[in-house]
This record gives sequence, C-alpha cells and structure tokens, in this order.
Amino acid sequence: MRVVIVGATGYVGSELVRLLTRHPNVQIVGLVGRGRDKEPVEATHPSLATTGLVVDAEMPEADAVFLALPHGAAAAMVPGLAASGTAFIDLGPDFRLRDAADYPRWYGFDHPAAELLGGAIYGLPELHRSELIALADAPTAIVGSPGCYPTATLLALAPLARAGLIGDLVVDAKSGVSGAGREAKADLMFGDVNESVKAYGLGGHRHVAEIEQELAALAPNAGANPGASGVDFLPHLIPMTRGILATCHVRPAGRVTQAGLDDLYASAYDGEPFISVVPTPPATKHVTGSNQCRIHVRLDERTGRIIVISVIDNLVKGAAGQAIQAFNLVHGLPETAGLEQLPLAP
Amino acid sequence: MRVVIVGATGYVGSELVRLLTRHPNVQIVGLVGRGRDKEPVEATHPSLATTGLVVDAEMPEADAVFLALPHGAAAAMVPGLAASGTAFIDLGPDFRLRDAADYPRWYGFDHPAAELLGGAIYGLPELHRSELIALADAPTAIVGSPGCYPTATLLALAPLARAGLIGDLVVDAKSGVSGAGREAKADLMFGDVNESVKAYGLGGHRHVAEIEQELAALAPNAGANPGASGVDFLPHLIPMTRGILATCHVRPAGRVTQAGLDDLYASAYDGEPFISVVPTPPATKHVTGSNQCRIHVRLDERTGRIIVISVIDNLVKGAAGQAIQAFNLVHGLPETAGLEQLPLAP
Amino acid sequence: MRVVIVGATGYVGSELVRLLTRHPNVQIVGLVGRGRDKEPVEATHPSLATTGLVVDAEMPEADAVFLALPHGAAAAMVPGLAASGTAFIDLGPDFRLRDAADYPRWYGFDHPAAELLGGAIYGLPELHRSELIALADAPTAIVGSPGCYPTATLLALAPLARAGLIGDLVVDAKSGVSGAGREAKADLMFGDVNESVKAYGLGGHRHVAEIEQELAALAPNAGANPGASGVDFLPHLIPMTRGILATCHVRPAGRVTQAGLDDLYASAYDGEPFISVVPTPPATKHVTGSNQCRIHVRLDERTGRIIVISVIDNLVKGAAGQAIQAFNLVHGLPETAGLEQLPLAP
Amino acid sequence: MRVVIVGATGYVGSELVRLLTRHPNVQIVGLVGRGRDKEPVEATHPSLATTGLVVDAEMPEADAVFLALPHGAAAAMVPGLAASGTAFIDLGPDFRLRDAADYPRWYGFDHPAAELLGGAIYGLPELHRSELIALADAPTAIVGSPGCYPTATLLALAPLARAGLIGDLVVDAKSGVSGAGREAKADLMFGDVNESVKAYGLGGHRHVAEIEQELAALAPNAGANPGASGVDFLPHLIPMTRGILATCHVRPAGRVTQAGLDDLYASAYDGEPFISVVPTPPATKHVTGSNQCRIHVRLDERTGRIIVISVIDNLVKGAAGQAIQAFNLVHGLPETAGLEQLPLAP
Repeated sequence: MRVVIVGATGYVGSELVRLLTRHPNVQIVGLVGRGRDKEPVEATHPSLATTGLVVDAEMPEADAVFLALPHGAAAAMVPGLAASGTAFIDLGPDFRLRDAADYPRWYGFDHPAAELLGGAIYGLPELHRSELIALADAPTAIVGSPGCYPTATLLALAPLARAGLIGDLVVDAKSGVSGAGREAKADLMFGDVNESVKAYGLGGHRHVAEIEQELAALAPNAGANPGASGVDFLPHLIPMTRGILATCHVRPAGRVTQAGLDDLYASAYDGEPFISVVPTPPATKHVTGSNQCRIHVRLDERTGRIIVISVIDNLVKGAAGQAIQAFNLVHGLPETAGLEQLPLAP
Repeated sequence: MRVVIVGATGYVGSELVRLLTRHPNVQIVGLVGRGRDKEPVEATHPSLATTGLVVDAEMPEADAVFLALPHGAAAAMVPGLAASGTAFIDLGPDFRLRDAADYPRWYGFDHPAAELLGGAIYGLPELHRSELIALADAPTAIVGSPGCYPTATLLALAPLARAGLIGDLVVDAKSGVSGAGREAKADLMFGDVNESVKAYGLGGHRHVAEIEQELAALAPNAGANPGASGVDFLPHLIPMTRGILATCHVRPAGRVTQAGLDDLYASAYDGEPFISVVPTPPATKHVTGSNQCRIHVRLDERTGRIIVISVIDNLVKGAAGQAIQAFNLVHGLPETAGLEQLPLAP
Repeated sequence: MRVVIVGATGYVGSELVRLLTRHPNVQIVGLVGRGRDKEPVEATHPSLATTGLVVDAEMPEADAVFLALPHGAAAAMVPGLAASGTAFIDLGPDFRLRDAADYPRWYGFDHPAAELLGGAIYGLPELHRSELIALADAPTAIVGSPGCYPTATLLALAPLARAGLIGDLVVDAKSGVSGAGREAKADLMFGDVNESVKAYGLGGHRHVAEIEQELAALAPNAGANPGASGVDFLPHLIPMTRGILATCHVRPAGRVTQAGLDDLYASAYDGEPFISVVPTPPATKHVTGSNQCRIHVRLDERTGRIIVISVIDNLVKGAAGQAIQAFNLVHGLPETAGLEQLPLAP
Repeated sequence: MRVVIVGATGYVGSELVRLLTRHPNVQIVGLVGRGRDKEPVEATHPSLATTGLVVDAEMPEADAVFLALPHGAAAAMVPGLAASGTAFIDLGPDFRLRDAADYPRWYGFDHPAAELLGGAIYGLPELHRSELIALADAPTAIVGSPGCYPTATLLALAPLARAGLIGDLVVDAKSGVSGAGREAKADLMFGDVNESVKAYGLGGHRHVAEIEQELAALAPNAGANPGASGVDFLPHLIPMTRGILATCHVRPAGRVTQAGLDDLYASAYDGEPFISVVPTPPATKHVTGSNQCRIHVRLDERTGRIIVISVIDNLVKGAAGQAIQAFNLVHGLPETAGLEQLPLAP
C-alpha cells in the first residue's frame, strides 16, 4: 500500500515514519510539510537520516493518507480529497467528535465538514474494531484517531463503564513533554521542565470531550453513570519525553470485589494483541516505543475505591501506532502489522 | 544553641546540615551515624566537604537533637534521653501519631514509649503553632515533624477541612525520588527511574495515617466530613530528585464559589511566612531548596469539583526545613531563622 | 537458528531479547540466569512481559550462544562447551584480547583458556568482517564482541589510524549509566546521577586494552603512531540512560585538509550498513535504540587538530546489536537481519 | 550598598536576585528589563515571587550596577553611565578582552568603547584579586566578569600555566543547558536534550578568546607554552540544567610527579575561600547552587599526561556568584559576603 504522511515535521509525523518504514505492507510515497521543498527528512528529524526520505509541499497519489496536523487543518483539507477513494487516518481531533457542536465549544472553530462526522470512526480498535473493519466498504474511509490521554483513560475505564460501575470518577494523568509537540516554547525548555512537575489544563483539557463522548457511548444508561459527563480529568507535565500514565480513581456504582474486577478486565481484554492486564502497577517505561497498553486494576478495601492505572507511549499507542493499527483494520491487513516492536528499556 | 543531628548520613541529615550551618542562632556540635568513627562528612555527603564536620557514633551534649532515623529507632532512643531536658525534633514517624494503636497498624511495631505520645506535638507550624511555642515550658519537648506527603496535603486541604467543605476527596501525589532515601535500591536506579513514572503504595501508604489524623482534628464534625477517614491518597514516583506536588480533587460538601475559596485561602494563610496562595498552578521547581509551600485553589465550574494543588521541596518544607521551623518556635527564635534562602531555579 | 542467551537478567541480556525476538532467522530457545528456576522474564525485565519467555538455570541445546556475563565467567564456561560445535558470541571481555597477559593486567584474572584466544575474532564487523565470515568454517566459532567505548572510539579513529595520521590522541568519552549494568549501586541512583556529571576510570579504564590492541593492529608502522600505545582515554558518566559519545582530539601526524578527511572517511565507510559520516556534530539521541553509528570529522584550522566525534547506543551497536551483526556474518545471514529498527526519537 | 540588576529577566539575572537578596550589605533598588513596565518579577521568574520585586525599564541611581546582557549591549551602555562614579560589573563579554581586535574576531562587532578596555579588570578573583581591590580607587570601576567555561578552565589550569608546565592541551568541557540562556530554542527543548549529548562550537567557541588571553598572561614565556595559543577547547551540551565540568588533558612541558602536582595545587589555592583541591574526581552536583569550584589533578603514569578536572555551578561561580565576589572586593566588603550558601544536594 502506498501511503502519504501529511504533517511530517512534527513528533507524530516522525513516529509514523519510524513505524511505517518497517511495515511489511507499506511503502511511504510522500512526506508532506507546509512550505517544504524537497527537504531531506533529517533537517527536522536527524534520527530518520538513513531513510533517504524528503519532505515536500506536494501530496502524491496514495492509497492512504495519515494526517498529523493542528486542529482545524484536516477538517479543511479532507473534503476536497475525499472524492478520490483514499482512506484518511487523521491523528488530530478533527474527526474524533461526533457532535459538530463540540468543535466550537472545545476547539474554538466551526467544523467546515460537519457532514462527514457521522461517517468517521473513532479509531480506538479495542472499542470500535468492527466499525473500522467495515470502513473497507465505505466510499470514503475516515478515521479520527484518538488523542493520547483519551486512549490511556478509555482503555483503563472501558470495562467499568460497560458494566455501569463508574459511580464517581477522578482521572489524574501524567504525561511526558512530547505530547505538547516540537515547537519551541519557553515552558518546554529543559531548564524549565527538568526537576519539576506541574498540572495544566485546569478547567477542562480539550481531551475531555473525547473521554466523555466515549464513556457515554459505553454506558447504555447514562443516568446511572455520572462518570460519563463532567469528567474530572486533570493532566500533569512531568520531566520525561515519552509516556502517559493515567490514574483513575473510581467510586464504584455497585458492589465489587477484587476477583470480580479481575474477571471483568480479563474478559474485556483477553485476546487483545496490545493490551495487558498486569498484576502490579505498571511504569511508563515498560511500554516505551511500543504499541502496548498495560492496565492494573485494584480495589482498595480501606477506601472502597477502585484504582485503575494504565500506561502507554503517547507517540505510539497514543498516536502513530494506534493510527497504524486502525489503518491495518481498514485495509484488511493483520492488525499487528508493523507494530510488533518490543518496548525499549532501560 | 548547640544542636546534634542523629542519622546524619541520609538525605534528610544532609539537608539539616546544609540549613543549620547558615542558621544564625545554631552551632552544630555533633553529627551522629551508627558505626561511624570520626568519618569526614564528605564520605557520605560530598556537597558538605567544606563544613569540616565529622560523623561519629557518640552523641555529645546539646540543647536540641534532630533525629532523622528509620521508623522505630527514635521511639527506642528518646525515652532514655528525655530526662535531660533536651528538646527532640523527630523527623521520622515515631512521634507523629497520637493513637498508639496506629503504630502496629501502619508501621508494624508496638510503640515502646506510648506514654510520650500525648505530649508530643505534630510539628506542622501552620496548624500547631501555639502548641509548639508552649513546648518551651514543657519538661521534655518532643516534636513529631510531619511526613513530606502529609505536609503538602494538609496545607492544601486545611482551609477546606476547617470549613467542613470536604465532601469527597482524592489526593493524587507526585514525588521525586529523594523521598525514598539514599539507600541503593534497584527501582531507584537512574536507568529505572528516568523517562518513567509509576504509582506505588496502593492499598494504603503509611502517610495516610497522619493525613487522616490531622484532617479529623481540623473538622470538628467528622460525620459531615468523609474526607477525614478512608482518604484515597495515592503517591507516584516521577523522574526528579526533589519536590512533591499534591493534587487534591475535592467534591465540596456545601455550596462554594471561586471568590469564596479565594477568601477562605487568603484568610487562612495571610501572614504565614512560608505559604503563598498563587493565582496559577505552581510547579515544584518554584520552591526547590526553599521552605516555601505554594498553593493554588480552583473551582471547576464544569465538574463542580474543587482542585487544590500544593508544591513543596520534600527535603525542606517536607523534612529538614519544617523541623527547623518547629525548632525555632520551641526555642523562642524567629520562626524564619535559617530558612530564608530563596528557591534555586532553574 | 536456535539461540540461547546466557546472562539474561542484565541490561545486555534484555536488549538481546528485544532484538532477537524480531530477528527473522532466529528462535530464542532459552534464557539462562544463575539460580533462576523457570522465572518469567518480566520478573527482571517488565518490558519483555509479552514475550512469554522464562529464565532458567539450565542451558538447552542451540546453534549459537550469546554470553552476557561478568568478566571471567565466559572464559570459565566456554572451553567445556566448545566441543559441541556451537558458535559463541561473548559480549564480555573474555575473548576480546589476543594477548593472554592482558587479562591479569587489566582484569585481574589469569585466563583459564588462553589457547582459545588465538582463534577468537574481535567482533567489530567494520574492522574484521572477513574473519567473522571465515568463522563459519571453524570447528569452534568464538567471537569476542567489543566493549561499548572501544566500538565508538575505534569506528571514529580507524580511518585515521590506517592512514598513519594519529600523531597525538586524546579520547574523551561520555556515557549514559546503562553501561554500568543494572545492579543497584549508590552512585547510580537517580538522586546521585541526575543533574550531575563526573569523570571516572582515571588512570586507565579497562576498555583501553581493546582500544590500544586494535589501533596498533590498524597502524602497520606502530613507531610512527604514538596513538596506538598509552592512549589517553577518559570516560564520563552523564545523566542519561543510553548512549555513548566519543570525542577524539587528534593532532595529525602528517598534513591533512578537510577535503582529504572527508574523502578518507567516505571511502572507509561507503557501503557500511550501520555507519554514517555526517556533516554536523551528531547527538546520541540520533541513534537511540538502533545499531547505527554516526561519525563527524572536522579539521580545526585554528588549532591544527582533527576532532572526530562518534555516537552509538551503548546497548545496541555497543553490545547486543553488534553481537547480532557478528552472529549474522558467522552464520551466513544478511548482516542487517534483525537490526533494521530505526532510532527512537524524541 | 544600593545595587541595580540590568537584564533581570534572564537566568543570570534571576541568580543575581537569589544571591543578592541574602547579601548582608546589599539592597536591590532596581531590576531593569527592556520594555518592562513595573512587571512583577515572578512573571519571568516564579521562584522569586516572594521577593516582591518588580522589573522596570528605568534604571534608578545606585552604587553598583550588575549587567547581564547579550554581547554588545553593555559596551553600548556603559560609557554614557561611567561618568556617574557607579561601579559596573558586566557579566557579558564586553569588558573581558583587553585587545579590542578580539571583539570583531570573536563576537562580530567593533567595540564602541575600546578606550575603557584598558582599565577594566577581568573579574576572576583568584587571578586578579589585587587589581579588583585597587578598583576601589578608580574613578570608574569596570569589571568584566568571566565566562562560565573560562572560569572552570582557568581555575583548573592556572597553577600549571604559571609553572610553565602546559606542553600540549586539550580542554573537553561538559555543560548543562542553562548556560545557553532562557530564550526558547528548538535544540534546548526537553524532548531534544534529555537522553542526549552533543558537542557544539566546533571550530572555536567564543570563550576560547578569554582562555587564551588569560593563559598567555599567566605564562611569562609564551614561546615555551603552546597551551596559551590555539587552545583546543570543545564544549558539550549534556542533559542537565546547571553545572560545568572541564576536563583538561595536559601533556606536561617538563618533568612532573603526583607529589609535585599536589604541592603545586595546594600552594596555589591554599586559603582561597571558594576553591577546594579534592582527592577524588568531583561531580558537578557537589557544588550546585554554591560559589565553589572543586579541582582534581592526577598524573596518569601510563600515558604521562596530567588530567585536571574542575567543576562549578555555571550560574554561580560561573556567573552571578563570581560577579558578587568581585563586587565585594571592589567595595571593600568581605569577599565571601552573600556567597556562603552550601551546595544543594541531592
């Protein structure tokens, strides 16, 4: 399959190249960057020097297009291209939300192609696998690949949400800096970040929109599931480059036991190629560079609360890897193709 | 005042030396370390080489003793020395808990000097200042200096607790590795810690005991304040050396407004020399090396929850600095003596 | 090919597993660790949990054995096994030095199998490729895989050494902590390492022996090449986990120009699959997780000195990856098999 | 003494505030920043929030002015102010070099006040103490406070240079990122810096000019001291915020012994309040936050070379602290006033 990566000069673009060059069924036929003119890829990504790829402003013909762009850019670009029969995997937020009204509310722009939102699939394969597979027959396949925080959060909570067990919910997340992109900003300088931690996004990080949308969809009876609306999600920036850890503090809506939780999670994720339910609290370094997600669930008898902790690499399972996983499903390829690298540790 | 530091070879001992050598009213007359024999302090703490101090097994006579020892050690040592009229500032947990039954429950040992617990003061000056001052007249002055996590947590929550506003409480804390001490352990190696984050202490970190004790004491009507018992406190280890950030997610027990919260915190901490209520979320690096605590309080209108975030340097306000602050009060010295250093940044 | 990894519980063992599980011609048939009894690999390496491998004390039959052991251990083990026709790739120092007298001098032990040293090949493919290929016909194939520092240093200097251009030589190297292994040591704790740098190995790091041996072999006329003996090599520990950067300061023995140096290095490394001569000073992060080595050579007109800088990932090109590269050559496999992963950045 | 800090919004400005607020003889009467209008200092330096200081465009009257400005800015500003009798401590390079021709060569600008260079003193107290003291009687006192790299390098080499022992010299330096200032730049982002190291300034870092000037001045017979011209100085950026380690590889010009070196360094630095000659290789973390410099000297019998290693905190002894030390001397204050803080470790 011939693929193009649009927005190749960011961290996510770089990660797509890293993974897709090793994908057995893929040939990268173009890297697109605004205003670039046959610029060697190493000008922005020295780690990719040996690929010999160049970044250009032109978009060649392809079977699939990965879009790694700021919000609003894909929404403006896709409609004009959609007629071509190409599949689009958008790694930005422009096709994640089903309700067009969420765009002005959370992202500050009116969606210019609201009519396409209904057909776009939220590309979290563990929740929407069959819909992704069904896209193969759609005239235009559009995948809205999830945000990094929603990926970690939803995978942690999906089994509880489906069971209607989320009675009260606090999600306290910790992320490395690569989630903020590679543009130079004062508060992402090494001197500011190292030996420091801070919360950000108080009052409502944009990823809350996805989290609430998907939690609500999982819980058939929203009234019984206060977790699905007004989710208290708070991210923190910690001094590392890759990785997200989401700590979910859940007051159960019903009676639970540790054994029951173990069963619930085992059955939810049994057979999932990238999800492991683990018996001890995972660290982000256990999954660095891989498409894996590890989840630990624990009932705290003393407080009565359920703690669910999940870890991912925000640039892989939280971005490029997950997009490729969805791409594989849409194109009838093995779901794990190109994604079998083990984590890099230490 | 002549002071002795017992347990001088750990991180807290080192920090006591760093601060007390600059204290205008103090002379360090001895550093005590088990099995040491006139060992230059730089053998364990190269940063202190210029002090010329030595670590020895013998304890000289002194006006005050700072104990920085593993749990159980101070409890065994203090009774024998208490007759001497010396003041004891214990930086371990042995004199923090008022209920002797908490020791076997949380620390796994029966307290050998339970009769002294009633007279010991929990050394958080912002909550127990007058009791610390009153110790000047006690035959034996014993201060149980607070743990690092309880310091950050209690300073964040005290105004809400006193007002009976804590309806539901999640405390999600992030700490650098120095809180775990300086003994070589596999999971504290650079290769394991850098580029990683993990939760630990699931099921009940020992510091919960202090947090619950003090929250209960602050809220006169415990029944109305579920936050005071069964506190969901979860710490995380992040890749930094110093600093604690405590994120408190509070569902208010009553009606609150942002203006009301601002007033509540301003009046609680107005005039406190080491506490700043700040208008933007603080980072731990804003207080590194200082005795400061910074607190941000925010009502999230969307979720109805109050977010309170506090930051301290775990080795200063969370340990050595706070102990010196209490020492100053007990001995009638200016509360800020020796503690006026500004944070080190970047 | 069935391979066994002996010493599987260290960092190098872990890296061998990471790479060999993706090698198209290899099946890992055993992980061996002293005193282990069917211990899941994730007990020591959580990142490898999904492999399902176990570590055991027994060594099964295999076509090749990778030994990742402390010095002296492989020397004691190989002779007894050598009769079997298995190939041995030793990642420790026991088969790197040709002169048996170097072992007591540099490593403090008398080599128990000195008779095997003559047949062992120093496994730096860029310098000894044909000898490695020829091992295919040897009754016992033993490869002494190079140390991490010698790999970076020799690849940087080989073109100059062959041309007899090394007139005076200083090698100042910087390494992440993973080179020191995963055993818990006080000076490798995060609190000691982060925000710090120090030199170590003053007076002669053990890797000097390899560097001198190979430089001497490259320079036909040792008398004219003072760099080959008494090499001033000084390593530094810096606050990172992976990566080595070697800075070689060379006073040329003859007349050189930048164009001449460019030609010399281009012709030396043209066609090498893992070596890139790059036009700007490389950073270790450009090669993390890959088997690449990048080299920059610059004549400083002002001082008349040549600066050569090389970067590798110490656990890949400096250990596991290089061993696999040699293994491929010995077994007639494509040299790059299993080693085509791109660097992980950021 | 009333002092003003011009260029208060950078890292060096912040460090001057941190130290001078604790100086017993100093009152900060103004912080000056271009285009600022009574901006609270915490807008750029949150760590200084408790000082209550503001940054303004206006410069009030003062007894001394600290200038922390980009090169060229102080040279343009000082002449107009010099008539006032104020003392100027310039922390930039504008008054470090005695030969006006060095400015176009190394910094790319013609010095607009070349006539002042002759009277300016290079503010390294350990080399120019008496000249700094003598400035008290000068009509205009101008101190060119040394760069961070020259400070570490010159303190390491001065005893050897004075003794005419530098036969061949390589200085390989490692620095944290704060030396590059606080402006947001892509290559200083956490994602680029962490887990990476690189050389920079190949072909001649600007600080070479100072190093060569001062080494030449120390060696009376320059012909016998090739180290004084064409110094091979190469800096590296490592993943930390503060600290410089300079590794000096010296081929001695004459016969030396370890005992002779020990004597040479002991007598050179005996009584110096901020210099320690230490028996083991120092780490930068041993001096963080302090005005100390630690030096280790070792004769490597195997190679015949002398290794001298020095460490400083680049923002203290390499900038703000050293400037205050010179200020103290110029104004007849105790040399250590305001500089007695111990290092912050871990």
